[in-house]
Amino acid sequence: MRVLSGIQPTGRFHWGNYFGAIKQYIDLQENEQAFYFIADLHALTTIRDGKRLHQNTMEAAIDLLALGLDPQKATLFRQSDVPEITDLTWILMTITQLSLLEKCHAYKDKKEKGIAADAGLFTYPVLMAADILLYDSDLVPVGQDQIQHVEVTRDLAQRFNSLFGETLILPESRVLDTSAKVPGIDGEKMSKSYKNVIEIFEDPKKQRKKVMSIKTDSATLEDPKNPDTCAVYALYKLFANDEQQAELAQRYRAGGMGYGEAKQAVHDAALEYFGPARERREQLAADTSTLNDILAEGAHKAREKGKQVLDRVQAACGLGSKHLAK
Amino acid sequence: MRVLSGIQPTGRFHWGNYFGAIKQYIDLQENEQAFYFIADLHALTTIRDGKRLHQNTMEAAIDLLALGLDPQKATLFRQSDVPEITDLTWILMTITQLSLLEKCHAYKDKKEKGIAADAGLFTYPVLMAADILLYDSDLVPVGQDQIQHVEVTRDLAQRFNSLFGETLILPESRVLDTSAKVPGIDGEKMSKSYKNVIEIFEDPKKQRKKVMSIKTDSATLEDPKNPDTCAVYALYKLFANDEQQAELAQRYRAGGMGYGEAKQAVHDAALEYFGPARERREQLAADTSTLNDILAEGAHKAREKGKQVLDRVQAACGLGSKHLAK
Repeated sequence: MRVLSGIQPTGRFHWGNYFGAIKQYIDLQENEQAFYFIADLHALTTIRDGKRLHQNTMEAAIDLLALGLDPQKATLFRQSDVPEITDLTWILMTITQLSLLEKCHAYKDKKEKGIAADAGLFTYPVLMAADILLYDSDLVPVGQDQIQHVEVTRDLAQRFNSLFGETLILPESRVLDTSAKVPGIDGEKMSKSYKNVIEIFEDPKKQRKKVMSIKTDSATLEDPKNPDTCAVYALYKLFANDEQQAELAQRYRAGGMGYGEAKQAVHDAALEYFGPARERREQLAADTSTLNDILAEGAHKAREKGKQVLDRVQAACGLGSKHLAK
Repeated sequence: MRVLSGIQPTGRFHWGNYFGAIKQYIDLQENEQAFYFIADLHALTTIRDGKRLHQNTMEAAIDLLALGLDPQKATLFRQSDVPEITDLTWILMTITQLSLLEKCHAYKDKKEKGIAADAGLFTYPVLMAADILLYDSDLVPVGQDQIQHVEVTRDLAQRFNSLFGETLILPESRVLDTSAKVPGIDGEKMSKSYKNVIEIFEDPKKQRKKVMSIKTDSATLEDPKNPDTCAVYALYKLFANDEQQAELAQRYRAGGMGYGEAKQAVHDAALEYFGPARERREQLAADTSTLNDILAEGAHKAREKGKQVLDRVQAACGLGSKHLAK
């Protein structure tokens, strides 16, 4: 089973990204053939600064490797290192009805807000379909808001197959587990758009400051507290084992412990949890050549598969020279 | 000066194609660095039959070579053999305002007729811009109806340069000479959409039948005739030298010559005019390996240039690994 997922290099990852998605992607590498790519071609629709995009792409790759993505198990590559992607994108573009794209969220949202959209934003579901179909992906782990894109992908694959004969494999989506609540410092869901995030690899002092600023209720030190409605406790759960969780819950309910102490516990637990990742991150950041080798090797593997599929597609629709000899 | 032109492989070329465009493209190979490609990626927006598209592409290449395109002078290639094209297309897509595409003729015409458009038709001005910009083309010979595409190309190049720094060369369009009138068998302008065409390499017997069916006025054999308003004479002019033209004009004016005889003269002159091309065509069609070599060599040359430009573009917007070492 081939699992595919793309991650946009739009900035540094936060705890919400990790527990909501990255951790789950990385876990999949154990049992599946995992293809993970840094979606720099997608990011181009929003980042118009070459240095920043390049930097973001490299940071994202380092972060993922530091967080446990194992290049011996999974294939990690930069989207723009696989030119077959845009070849397939154009081919799919010619069979994509405009009405299909007009229904897609990202475009609709922007249009409703009266923001002028670029063709990149409008057509990026086609690029996303190519991302998935180019590697004969079977399974695409997605957030609830991206199920639509897998549906579009299936639609396009079906249309291609019905026009040109069975060529493309229809992928399935698997919705990510969102049962782990990751509140931000304001208590709402942690999300870059709410500006309430705590970055995974932020400087510990700055990170502590953010953790200490997490919003709580006005209970005094002496008051008993409810762990189940507390953002601080919800975050602690992510980093602590069952025993530690039970212990803190008990102290909450007993009263006599202030939120400050609980926040400090979150900070300590997070530092410990991501400690090994922080170390790996430093090593990787200092060793550009290893990083480049990993990305080059990933691109090589991705292209090997991608070329096979593109050959099939081109032969089916009469493009290219691969089938000239016939 | 680099001249670029793409030719859609949508069917066999006719006399109107030749005198209105192909002849003029080929003439440019003498003094300019000419890049000519068979636009199979564009044709994909209308041809959904792999065998037919492939066949059309090969026929178009054979026809162009037979008609005098000299691979020693000009670079002839198949669009889909240059993967850099779609890479650049996607990059340009991210900076193309939808409003720009909504103004383009092909889409507007279809929309006004209430025909559902595909994303390929809607975005093909972006592919066309990539076709032009990928090779640092200076000059694009176009028909009146395609000036808009060169304008779109210039717009996109300017937008890219203003966002990412000077990277792309702005092309100029040169409008093709349309002074040579090429009427079809109904007397209207020869055009596939009017179904009035005479194909260049049609079987001589069938071609003669078509020529003999050209619409004329009802003058009798004895009547003096006006060459300046006669479709048969207009076609004869294309194939005959000045002396021959003057002689036939005089016979028209004198009366005593029927249209049948004039039509026969057109048929004979066309056969003679395209005689050497017909011979070359037969040789080329029988020698697939030479044809494939020419297309492979053309693709190689085109990619050499295309890679340079794409490298510049990717470096400017932060994609790919070319500038990793920095």
